[in-house]
Amino acid sequence: MKDKIVTFGEIMLRLSPENNARFTQCNAFEAVYGGGEANTAVSLANFDVDANYVTKLPKHIIGQAAINSLRQYGVGVDHIVRGGDQIGIYFLEKKTSQRPTNVIYNRAGSAFALATADDFNWDEIFDGATWFHFSGITPAISDEMTNICITACQKAKEKGMTVSCDLNYRSKLWSSEKACEAMSRICQYVDVCIANEDDAIGIFSMNPADANGEEKNAYIAKELMKKFPFKMVASVWRTETSITTFKLQSMIYTEGKAYYSKEFFMHILDYIGAGDAYCAGLIYSLINNFDPQKAVEFSNAASCLKHTVSGDYNLVTVDEVMKLAFSDAGNEVQR
Amino acid sequence: MKDKIVTFGEIMLRLSPENNARFTQCNAFEAVYGGGEANTAVSLANFDVDANYVTKLPKHIIGQAAINSLRQYGVGVDHIVRGGDQIGIYFLEKKTSQRPTNVIYNRAGSAFALATADDFNWDEIFDGATWFHFSGITPAISDEMTNICITACQKAKEKGMTVSCDLNYRSKLWSSEKACEAMSRICQYVDVCIANEDDAIGIFSMNPADANGEEKNAYIAKELMKKFPFKMVASVWRTETSITTFKLQSMIYTEGKAYYSKEFFMHILDYIGAGDAYCAGLIYSLINNFDPQKAVEFSNAASCLKHTVSGDYNLVTVDEVMKLAFSDAGNEVQR
Amino acid sequence: MKDKIVTFGEIMLRLSPENNARFTQCNAFEAVYGGGEANTAVSLANFDVDANYVTKLPKHIIGQAAINSLRQYGVGVDHIVRGGDQIGIYFLEKKTSQRPTNVIYNRAGSAFALATADDFNWDEIFDGATWFHFSGITPAISDEMTNICITACQKAKEKGMTVSCDLNYRSKLWSSEKACEAMSRICQYVDVCIANEDDAIGIFSMNPADANGEEKNAYIAKELMKKFPFKMVASVWRTETSITTFKLQSMIYTEGKAYYSKEFFMHILDYIGAGDAYCAGLIYSLINNFDPQKAVEFSNAASCLKHTVSGDYNLVTVDEVMKLAFSDAGNEVQR
Amino acid sequence: MKDKIVTFGEIMLRLSPENNARFTQCNAFEAVYGGGEANTAVSLANFDVDANYVTKLPKHIIGQAAINSLRQYGVGVDHIVRGGDQIGIYFLEKKTSQRPTNVIYNRAGSAFALATADDFNWDEIFDGATWFHFSGITPAISDEMTNICITACQKAKEKGMTVSCDLNYRSKLWSSEKACEAMSRICQYVDVCIANEDDAIGIFSMNPADANGEEKNAYIAKELMKKFPFKMVASVWRTETSITTFKLQSMIYTEGKAYYSKEFFMHILDYIGAGDAYCAGLIYSLINNFDPQKAVEFSNAASCLKHTVSGDYNLVTVDEVMKLAFSDAGNEVQR
Amino acid sequence: MKDKIVTFGEIMLRLSPENNARFTQCNAFEAVYGGGEANTAVSLANFDVDANYVTKLPKHIIGQAAINSLRQYGVGVDHIVRGGDQIGIYFLEKKTSQRPTNVIYNRAGSAFALATADDFNWDEIFDGATWFHFSGITPAISDEMTNICITACQKAKEKGMTVSCDLNYRSKLWSSEKACEAMSRICQYVDVCIANEDDAIGIFSMNPADANGEEKNAYIAKELMKKFPFKMVASVWRTETSITTFKLQSMIYTEGKAYYSKEFFMHILDYIGAGDAYCAGLIYSLINNFDPQKAVEFSNAASCLKHTVSGDYNLVTVDEVMKLAFSDAGNEVQR
Amino acid sequence: MKDKIVTFGEIMLRLSPENNARFTQCNAFEAVYGGGEANTAVSLANFDVDANYVTKLPKHIIGQAAINSLRQYGVGVDHIVRGGDQIGIYFLEKKTSQRPTNVIYNRAGSAFALATADDFNWDEIFDGATWFHFSGITPAISDEMTNICITACQKAKEKGMTVSCDLNYRSKLWSSEKACEAMSRICQYVDVCIANEDDAIGIFSMNPADANGEEKNAYIAKELMKKFPFKMVASVWRTETSITTFKLQSMIYTEGKAYYSKEFFMHILDYIGAGDAYCAGLIYSLINNFDPQKAVEFSNAASCLKHTVSGDYNLVTVDEVMKLAFSDAGNEVQR
Repeated sequence: MKDKIVTFGEIMLRLSPENNARFTQCNAFEAVYGGGEANTAVSLANFDVDANYVTKLPKHIIGQAAINSLRQYGVGVDHIVRGGDQIGIYFLEKKTSQRPTNVIYNRAGSAFALATADDFNWDEIFDGATWFHFSGITPAISDEMTNICITACQKAKEKGMTVSCDLNYRSKLWSSEKACEAMSRICQYVDVCIANEDDAIGIFSMNPADANGEEKNAYIAKELMKKFPFKMVASVWRTETSITTFKLQSMIYTEGKAYYSKEFFMHILDYIGAGDAYCAGLIYSLINNFDPQKAVEFSNAASCLKHTVSGDYNLVTVDEVMKLAFSDAGNEVQR
Repeated sequence: MKDKIVTFGEIMLRLSPENNARFTQCNAFEAVYGGGEANTAVSLANFDVDANYVTKLPKHIIGQAAINSLRQYGVGVDHIVRGGDQIGIYFLEKKTSQRPTNVIYNRAGSAFALATADDFNWDEIFDGATWFHFSGITPAISDEMTNICITACQKAKEKGMTVSCDLNYRSKLWSSEKACEAMSRICQYVDVCIANEDDAIGIFSMNPADANGEEKNAYIAKELMKKFPFKMVASVWRTETSITTFKLQSMIYTEGKAYYSKEFFMHILDYIGAGDAYCAGLIYSLINNFDPQKAVEFSNAASCLKHTVSGDYNLVTVDEVMKLAFSDAGNEVQR
Repeated sequence: MKDKIVTFGEIMLRLSPENNARFTQCNAFEAVYGGGEANTAVSLANFDVDANYVTKLPKHIIGQAAINSLRQYGVGVDHIVRGGDQIGIYFLEKKTSQRPTNVIYNRAGSAFALATADDFNWDEIFDGATWFHFSGITPAISDEMTNICITACQKAKEKGMTVSCDLNYRSKLWSSEKACEAMSRICQYVDVCIANEDDAIGIFSMNPADANGEEKNAYIAKELMKKFPFKMVASVWRTETSITTFKLQSMIYTEGKAYYSKEFFMHILDYIGAGDAYCAGLIYSLINNFDPQKAVEFSNAASCLKHTVSGDYNLVTVDEVMKLAFSDAGNEVQR
Repeated sequence: MKDKIVTFGEIMLRLSPENNARFTQCNAFEAVYGGGEANTAVSLANFDVDANYVTKLPKHIIGQAAINSLRQYGVGVDHIVRGGDQIGIYFLEKKTSQRPTNVIYNRAGSAFALATADDFNWDEIFDGATWFHFSGITPAISDEMTNICITACQKAKEKGMTVSCDLNYRSKLWSSEKACEAMSRICQYVDVCIANEDDAIGIFSMNPADANGEEKNAYIAKELMKKFPFKMVASVWRTETSITTFKLQSMIYTEGKAYYSKEFFMHILDYIGAGDAYCAGLIYSLINNFDPQKAVEFSNAASCLKHTVSGDYNLVTVDEVMKLAFSDAGNEVQR
Repeated sequence: MKDKIVTFGEIMLRLSPENNARFTQCNAFEAVYGGGEANTAVSLANFDVDANYVTKLPKHIIGQAAINSLRQYGVGVDHIVRGGDQIGIYFLEKKTSQRPTNVIYNRAGSAFALATADDFNWDEIFDGATWFHFSGITPAISDEMTNICITACQKAKEKGMTVSCDLNYRSKLWSSEKACEAMSRICQYVDVCIANEDDAIGIFSMNPADANGEEKNAYIAKELMKKFPFKMVASVWRTETSITTFKLQSMIYTEGKAYYSKEFFMHILDYIGAGDAYCAGLIYSLINNFDPQKAVEFSNAASCLKHTVSGDYNLVTVDEVMKLAFSDAGNEVQR
Repeated sequence: MKDKIVTFGEIMLRLSPENNARFTQCNAFEAVYGGGEANTAVSLANFDVDANYVTKLPKHIIGQAAINSLRQYGVGVDHIVRGGDQIGIYFLEKKTSQRPTNVIYNRAGSAFALATADDFNWDEIFDGATWFHFSGITPAISDEMTNICITACQKAKEKGMTVSCDLNYRSKLWSSEKACEAMSRICQYVDVCIANEDDAIGIFSMNPADANGEEKNAYIAKELMKKFPFKMVASVWRTETSITTFKLQSMIYTEGKAYYSKEFFMHILDYIGAGDAYCAGLIYSLINNFDPQKAVEFSNAASCLKHTVSGDYNLVTVDEVMKLAFSDAGNEVQR
């Protein structure tokens, strides 16, 4: 059976000044659309996977533009609900040497933030679907949305679908307490969990210092698997190695064993969406039955390439990821 | 005594695609800040008037950028309240031949929309002030804001200040019924009313067809003066004369007489803020004791020039307005 | 049965200097994709019609970008053939007052120009389809393409589909003789013919001067209907009324009667694709069973709005066309 | 003998805000190079004439960029003197409906303004040359430059060259008195004088009202020919016919007869350099022995097309001018 | 008493090609305003200090735009003199790997370069002021300006103000001899001297090689304090550590002791204005009574952040500087 | 005798997305012209060498724009043949961290690809010329072009000119077998060969592993000199040393000895044309009789600076190259 992926969350208009300008000196914004699960869907569609995205957007032309941005890359948009008045917006000042990334949200009052359980008919949405993916941002948006996520998970499990969740803790959206309570309920339904150190600390108050010499991502994965019936925990982490360079590495923990990818040293064009690209790499790997080592290399390479693409979406093909992950061939121009 | 003007309302971030593109085809937005009363304040500051603007804006850097846009042109910003989370935004597709202007608001939930009476200390704000100006958009934002406007008007009258109000009916913000009820209360305090045909119909259900042959702006002015203790009613109207040309004319009605400006035939670079520029022209005229005919010519020319300036603000000097209003000199390059 | 439209032709990369610059002074090109039948398909998709596009494009990422540009607006792209090495390109200097539009083609050697009959499996392509549309540009591209068009027409007629063809004579692509020979064969299969004066003269050597006082579009339609089994001939024409203004009007001739639209006086943002937008308006009208007068007004308004949209594609909705075609409401901003 | 044209004057860096913005709202400038005589030289080079330009520019890379801008279009730059420290600059706000063109000069202290007679070796410069052209701007720059112009004229006449001068009065550069004194000396050497009404009034205090019903350009030409040994006086004038349209017409007066061109009604992309383009059209006409009627049509069409080209330079070919001047063919796209 | 800072110098229009282009290949310039003391004033205003700027600018709209650029960030502009004809301009090619920064001045003949002592009424300017700051560029502009600086210093000392001066040697503006003579007179009045190695060598012919093992900035500070009655000497230096990375460190020398900041390894967005930002950091530190170690860290961090902001001005807040200077928190996105 | 260089090859329009965007996300292309030999010619012209370029381009305005791009920098274009219909185009996605450079050619069917021997009259072209340069790309374009190259080489040798060839193997244009056969014939005429490891492997199937410890560029040079009568073999190589840094070094092998340049560690703005810039540096060195060590340093520095210039052309002066190659002076701003 062909895999059909459904992702669910909020897509926003992202506005960022050109050329690393500050907000106080720009008179134009680059405009793209993005959001955790939308990014994962686009990435999967670029891998030629049947990826579908569910959200709620206003009927107006800006809402349509968001949909078009998904459709352009082949994402299925048939179950996007239209209604509400506003689209979520986020403003982004890009990290520039010592000046950190600056994100300002304008998402309260958006169509998705005000969406209710009635907006989503999961039976129809999941018709023919095999995989459900979302991130911890979605339940963080409102209590209603927490419940919607749980409903969706239950329905997905009923239908025998795989459920994956990127924990993705956002302290600006909810407190650790609230996150812990909600995510603990949600994680009961999750098969594949994507989690990094910050998520484990922020949501489940884990302490990597307790690892006792064990590699800390593996330690966290093991601890999480004690609490929840995950089949796999995956993680990707980025470390600043110099003011111009970051190191990227990933781990997959499954069946009691940790698999580590090779490391990439990257110069970064865009910091946003690297985790979402990793999720897409992971889902692609799993539906194609890659073994864990191949999966972690593929997912890590997919995430690495995202850092070279402007905007939230990862616009790379399977061939490009494969070449980076597994080919020793140099990167010189082919001409 | 030197005149000190205070204007009050919401300033928004305006986002419009470059080069008349549609929202569905743009990947960048021109960004300016604007809003009825802010526009009037900037225009007055460009006329070297002591113009001050009161609003509420978030503490974040986008809020600061809005303030900077005012400060840049010399508007006093000392009484702008900082707080709340979001800035109001509006999206603008510019009119292009038969394709009409398209405005989409993203202002629900803004700092100003959620502002309360406690935010504004009118005694301090009006210290030394001689004139208070606002538009009908401000009370339309919330019931709380209606009351804030009334409080401000009362305080202004106590202090012997002149109060001007541009009726500016916005059907997307309130119903005719609600507008009528609120504006009827507010207009008790207004000395100078700026009103056009649409406002009179939308708010006070007037019927210009009842004019019985009288020029309809004069008719409306007279009818309004029957209802409210206005000392003056002023109006500016724009008529499409061909697909590339609009005609602009203005009227001032005072002491039982209507004064009409000459007409300008304009090609329009920016349709927004022409009424606000007119208000600024009018206030400038009145604080400089122009006679009604001079006042209507000056105000009309100020409004005309606004159509040649991109963005919400009217960036022209008194000299430029005077030259257009009263000089026969050609417009050829001086070099 | 829901209508499913198939259009067929070449989509090209269109490169034009920004801000009306000449080629010799620009160092950047605006890049969009377009081509007669692709434009019609996008326009139909924007009308929420099930519109599909068939062409051949290289496998490389520029070919993919062309496909994405269609997919973004909802056009079905499942039957686009991938292969060949080059994409067709056209360079465009926009008309600027007395300086005429300047088009330079770089399309010889494109994947589509070198496509062969084997590339297109019409049985699969037409599965479930109800309408086939193409223009006279497509058979002009090569002898092979002429034959492919005839094959497609035959297959469409076998399946009971409606066939429409916009004659669209291109003197840069073929001679009058060659065009006449090929189009005479093709027109045997056409139900709805879109033709203007230049097409009639260029392809069929008609002489409008023979109209003997009859309106010349109607005359041409009648003459064409004598030669071919058309059920309808439709035409749209643009007349320069001043250096800044063009007049647009349309006619539908069917069952012995000519129906004329009202006229629009337009300022033009983009001259390209107006005829393709007209075809889309016509197809929409016919599949929705508009009467001829309603159809000609709708189609003419659709074409009018295209002139306000930059690029080849007509990015307007049915609502927007309806409002222009049939509403007396002014074009003032709604806010 | 092949004609070789030498033009002489100052080339400046022109800085103008994009999209008709005001100086107070722009954070980027479009940058082109231009100046009366440079513009004429470029225009002639685009007509495939051997056109050469003489000026003085700093040795730095901005000076080089100015030279490259000329060389790009084929102008001979072998006699451009390098030295001095600054390049002349002018800032330009483009006319926008009622808002007039605004030019601000930053040219005092430029290499050319401080140039001395020693900088120019006219014997070498004029080697093989047949025509010398300059405008009244050049002698206006300094007393030294007035003398340099006279020296150059004397040398040109010695060598049997034709001398043409566009009077081009600039009130910002010199007074009427000073202009009259200098130009009266210079005009003794001029064969072909380009002059319009403003020049005649500004420099020679003529009064077109004295024309007594005669067409005023012809009157001025006749009066000028009484004062100076001109063989021809030519003029081009632009009249605002509506806020979006200007009318352009030209006259050549020679051997006691005035020849008038047809009129063009233009929408204007760029107001600068139209007179310089006219001079180029005239010089081209005369070195190709066009009769006066053909010459005035060609020159007028050349000037008309300049209004459609952004920047100071007229980037059109002889073919394009010919087509506009003499062809009845429509301006529709050829494709 | 609240501190009120006055800075004095020339503000120029800075023109630089976009995207690291060379002057010979660009047709647009990014335009910002800047100049040593203006940059310091803007930086202080962004720290919420009452910062005022004194200069002379033409009355035209470009002069106004320069003022607006200061006002936008809250700098006091009440004592800016208007007059003269030209604004100083500098052209900037940004350093790009091995290609060095290229600066071309067009400032001779500017309003400020031609300003005279009469233009500045120091009694009025210094009314209520507590601190006077300028750099060695200002006296370098003309002999008149040297004297104006001395007059201003004398007046400042009379009023009990603190005087700070950034030596800032510019070999393109004056010789070492002239600089030494003038700066020796000026330094008699200076309390806080900002000086680096190049200044000490260029102006006072010091030889860091004489340091005898002592850290050379401390050595220079001590030597300077022998010559002049400075209370403090401060220095910031940037070292190229790789083609993509620079190291930044600072020192404050006071009361016989040198205090060193930590080092930052930076990727640089804009090389201009880092010293001016350092001065602002220092003045902020001193008026807030930071101890020397805190002061040097704050100033160094302020300068570091300037390298991340495009343009001459340092657009960062006290919070941002504090976070970089004193927080161990990572720079990851907060969201 | 003054040296006159002739270079020969195809110049193409290069289209690349702005700001490192991918083709699928851009709606504008930066447009420059370039091609191996054209790049070398421009570089030489910027060194004030009499450099001439021979190619074939269509008569249309895009062909003219390509010529203008050469003329702008002073390249002689008198022998460029006009004819054919299309210009060669290449699309370029710039390398961005792990995402490699992506080049897509659209050059089949170009005027140059279809050029024939009759198009080029080598006697006229080489009149007065002293040096002929081309690259291995030119003969790779067609069999006809291989023969044209041989003819040109023969003619050049007859006239006593120096012939240089950059082997420049392009696997997308021809196979190793074909390249070997053709280049072996051509190399008989070559005096100065520019070759790197990839060329030696790709064309002549050399194996650097056979070097037996010898530096591999020297080994290749020696092997090539065994096969062909080269007087000199020169090479430049770029090594990725980190994700942000490349190392550049060069070698000249002549008279049995290898000369190595110093190394540059570069951050790269543009990867294209570095080899062409190296060729220009070499030719400049040889016509100025630099000794081999000076020549290799100059050529290497020229190539290094190319990496800092956007576009195909190396826009640097001899002074700039000299300063980088031989001066110890820092790269700090001179101001």
